[in-house]
Amino acid sequence: MSIESTLAELGLSLPPAPKPAGAYIPTRRTGNLVFVAGQVPLAAGQMVATGSVPSQVNMETAHKCAVQCVLNGLAAIKAEVGSLDAIKQFVRLGVFVCSDAGFTEQPKVANAASELLVKLFGDKGRHARAAVGSVALPLGSPVEIEFIVEV
Amino acid sequence: MSIESTLAELGLSLPPAPKPAGAYIPTRRTGNLVFVAGQVPLAAGQMVATGSVPSQVNMETAHKCAVQCVLNGLAAIKAEVGSLDAIKQFVRLGVFVCSDAGFTEQPKVANAASELLVKLFGDKGRHARAAVGSVALPLGSPVEIEFIVEV
Amino acid sequence: MSIESTLAELGLSLPPAPKPAGAYIPTRRTGNLVFVAGQVPLAAGQMVATGSVPSQVNMETAHKCAVQCVLNGLAAIKAEVGSLDAIKQFVRLGVFVCSDAGFTEQPKVANAASELLVKLFGDKGRHARAAVGSVALPLGSPVEIEFIVEV
Repeated sequence: MSIESTLAELGLSLPPAPKPAGAYIPTRRTGNLVFVAGQVPLAAGQMVATGSVPSQVNMETAHKCAVQCVLNGLAAIKAEVGSLDAIKQFVRLGVFVCSDAGFTEQPKVANAASELLVKLFGDKGRHARAAVGSVALPLGSPVEIEFIVEV
Repeated sequence: MSIESTLAELGLSLPPAPKPAGAYIPTRRTGNLVFVAGQVPLAAGQMVATGSVPSQVNMETAHKCAVQCVLNGLAAIKAEVGSLDAIKQFVRLGVFVCSDAGFTEQPKVANAASELLVKLFGDKGRHARAAVGSVALPLGSPVEIEFIVEV
Repeated sequence: MSIESTLAELGLSLPPAPKPAGAYIPTRRTGNLVFVAGQVPLAAGQMVATGSVPSQVNMETAHKCAVQCVLNGLAAIKAEVGSLDAIKQFVRLGVFVCSDAGFTEQPKVANAASELLVKLFGDKGRHARAAVGSVALPLGSPVEIEFIVEV
């Protein structure tokens, strides 16, 4: 079954490929690695939420944001390589969570992204990861995620 | 025309290769990828500015800082591979902007770096990018930029 | 002399391979590169320290944390490739230091990690590095370090 079918079974679908929020490109391929620019939770041109976790954005909403970042990243990868089925493995996720001082549950936010990738791709979806807090993110985003994948 | 000629036409020039601010090296090559250590806006041994954006450092100065980070990164790459003309493509920029809580325009700061690379290198200068806010950076820097390039 | 013998001479030893703090894996190999997930200073299941540098965690303790992150990273690499002697070179360290606003000595904290790698691996231990401040880190960690190594 294709990855996009699995996505549909989860009640999710791929958005249009994201446009960059600046003077850069969504993906750059070098050899068999694709580097995906940091994704924020834009859905149909609107941020799913904005603000810091957890004072302004609760954990449930932060999880939704992380999922949207993954969907946008997948759309960018598809635009680069033609199909999500061309992905051999995910290599690294960089997850930045806009955090109140003293917030320590960045991994729980990041897990929403990691778990979706494993649901979709199985062992190919597993990856190394750095999840850290950030004082402020572009567009007021609660979460930003960048990806390295092998194709 | 060589990249350094283009740089001169823009009224810019390459500084001496940066010295690391710690126990590491400015660049590490693996295969045809060169990883460049995080650059801060040192020019002739002095920081272009210090502090958080925008309360202590305005956008215009932040742009200047981003440009200086790029110049220092280019000098480091030249020291590694001999000539900027050996660069096949930029792959990824990691851009950290020392940010007040609530500041959301990290992409605008990062654009000063990205746009300079495209002016200098054309399509080869385009790259994936993560731009995030940071509560504090080395030497009080308003901006830190790291690079991955393919040679 | 093997790397683990050198480690013993320094009075250090390799902990058991770290378990991930979330839905990801400690290492992902692509070609001859191993990406190591962000490590926090867990030792025997306890954090060496928690809090922000320097108000809650002083420099000496922050150095100890950075060393523990390296030991955990080395344990993860050994679990992936069988022996630390298989490492050809360290490529990049990403060092996040939980920082008070205005703290600027992230490189000094990161140096504890970088210097240990050079003591253990000589020139192979040298690496490009980004050291930045973070408002908050997983588990309240003062330091998080991720690695890219060539094997």
